[in-house]
Amino acid sequence: MSDDKGAILLATTGWDQTAWSESVRELAEGRKVLDEPQGPGDPEIAYAVAWAPPPGLLRNLPNLKAIFSIGAGVDHLLKDPDLPDVPIVRVVSPDLTERMSEYVVWRVLDHHRQGALYRQQQAAHAWKEFSDQPAAGDITVGMLGLGELGRDAARKLDALGFRLSGWSRSERSLDGVTCHAGIQGLDAFLAESDIVVCLLPLTEETRGILSMPLFRKFKKDGPYGAPVLINAGRGGQQVEADIIAALDAGLLSAASLDVFNTEPLPVDSPLWDDPRVFITPHVAATSVARMIVPDMLRQMDDHDAGKPLENLVDRTRGY
Amino acid sequence: MSDDKGAILLATTGWDQTAWSESVRELAEGRKVLDEPQGPGDPEIAYAVAWAPPPGLLRNLPNLKAIFSIGAGVDHLLKDPDLPDVPIVRVVSPDLTERMSEYVVWRVLDHHRQGALYRQQQAAHAWKEFSDQPAAGDITVGMLGLGELGRDAARKLDALGFRLSGWSRSERSLDGVTCHAGIQGLDAFLAESDIVVCLLPLTEETRGILSMPLFRKFKKDGPYGAPVLINAGRGGQQVEADIIAALDAGLLSAASLDVFNTEPLPVDSPLWDDPRVFITPHVAATSVARMIVPDMLRQMDDHDAGKPLENLVDRTRGY
Repeated sequence: MSDDKGAILLATTGWDQTAWSESVRELAEGRKVLDEPQGPGDPEIAYAVAWAPPPGLLRNLPNLKAIFSIGAGVDHLLKDPDLPDVPIVRVVSPDLTERMSEYVVWRVLDHHRQGALYRQQQAAHAWKEFSDQPAAGDITVGMLGLGELGRDAARKLDALGFRLSGWSRSERSLDGVTCHAGIQGLDAFLAESDIVVCLLPLTEETRGILSMPLFRKFKKDGPYGAPVLINAGRGGQQVEADIIAALDAGLLSAASLDVFNTEPLPVDSPLWDDPRVFITPHVAATSVARMIVPDMLRQMDDHDAGKPLENLVDRTRGY
Repeated sequence: MSDDKGAILLATTGWDQTAWSESVRELAEGRKVLDEPQGPGDPEIAYAVAWAPPPGLLRNLPNLKAIFSIGAGVDHLLKDPDLPDVPIVRVVSPDLTERMSEYVVWRVLDHHRQGALYRQQQAAHAWKEFSDQPAAGDITVGMLGLGELGRDAARKLDALGFRLSGWSRSERSLDGVTCHAGIQGLDAFLAESDIVVCLLPLTEETRGILSMPLFRKFKKDGPYGAPVLINAGRGGQQVEADIIAALDAGLLSAASLDVFNTEPLPVDSPLWDDPRVFITPHVAATSVARMIVPDMLRQMDDHDAGKPLENLVDRTRGY
């Protein structure tokens, strides 16, 4: 095997570097794979496979053609002020999408079917039916974000009988989903959602969006008393003190959070012990190297052959 | 409104009699509705709407034309040795089917996505990813029973990416489901199922089926270590001491149980405190009167007009 194609720089900070390194090295025929640049301005590097690279790592690589993000979001790249002006490719992988939909359907059903209540009752040896169990068709799940991930989760919730509502930055039209768009559509979206699922990208517009001003616009009643919040977007979108305040004020009845402002979530965060909050350690949709690397390598070869890159990030939008 | 049609006897022991009574009384135009026979051999009663009626209650009603079960199973009727020889109609309701599929998908996802582990970790303020999270496509969910309920749940799990296997008494063919049938097909079914979901009817053949001899045939490995059992069929199908023994022996890794030999589950049952077992109080698919009564009344009118009854029970099969 000759290394006649441009090299790949691996910069998967915070992930299992071994799994990515092994997958890329196993499959990258004809490409050298580097864990760091071989000196400043390394001319061999043609592509970077990256997650939250150290700021400045990717600048001054004269032959860098594109950066591949290994997670669905790209905020971890765009925060680097020295990020070079080359195309950025988002991950769009059926495996990643399926894992995220699993998480969303799991959390929707656990709230809908009163999982927390039944676990409390089991601990008390109490046999008691929740007497007002609504049907799925009595519940509107509102998808905050209708990208690849939001659309797939909506389709799967629709198949289970839930009513679906959706909000996106720009106009969308989706079978079975009442679509709202832009700032002017947000109030109507919030007013009809019993469960709000956040799958937005983190941008300057969405930073801190899940906070008291938004929670005050949530539906005031509905089958669960107050709406449920599920955040599998980014921690930077939520104000954690406001989530607790909204639960205390009855603006929210419960929350499932997979992402946090600081990760790992600090051991003294009051979220851990709140019985209304379900916490997972940013595992809603983990990128699995062996499922994602083959398509990245195919895109590199296609791009070398003159074909356009797919799933490009629009830097002015931020995703 | 004249009571010119045959009367309806309501015998919904153990259910919310008020809701059934109100729904039937509100919608049963032209029919008298009785909470008990008006004397022995009440000739007015044409139909019974029943759940576990007191043994003998339905005998000697000379004009009884059919019995409508308000639950999906009919074991509660067939155990009455004095049950009159009239047609028995099972409930087949989209609402009931949807509720059962919700329960099955909920429990499959909660086991698949390590809900119990993450709840334990949350209690310990521990941020730790379950590192071997399989994809849905790595998991085979085995449906023990492929009636209306099993088929609908299988379709919805298939849409989430799970592999599906199914077992039924007689041969079935279902898109996306590897089907096995009869005693001779049971071992192959068990050998490939990572999660076994029981939705069988309770008959003499299925009584006690979920016990050690079956558990010994379960798959010995797989992504969860040992298989998971979900029982939303009938408590009479499970030997509860054997479920605990199978968990202790590593033949099972976890269980979700909605039904029990004795309901309510006795307060001193060891199942309550077993962290590997998730208990719900027979709520997987509750029959909701307002969703089911209209179709029952339509069938009564159709039957009076000479049309055949739908969803009839075969007493020799027991379901």
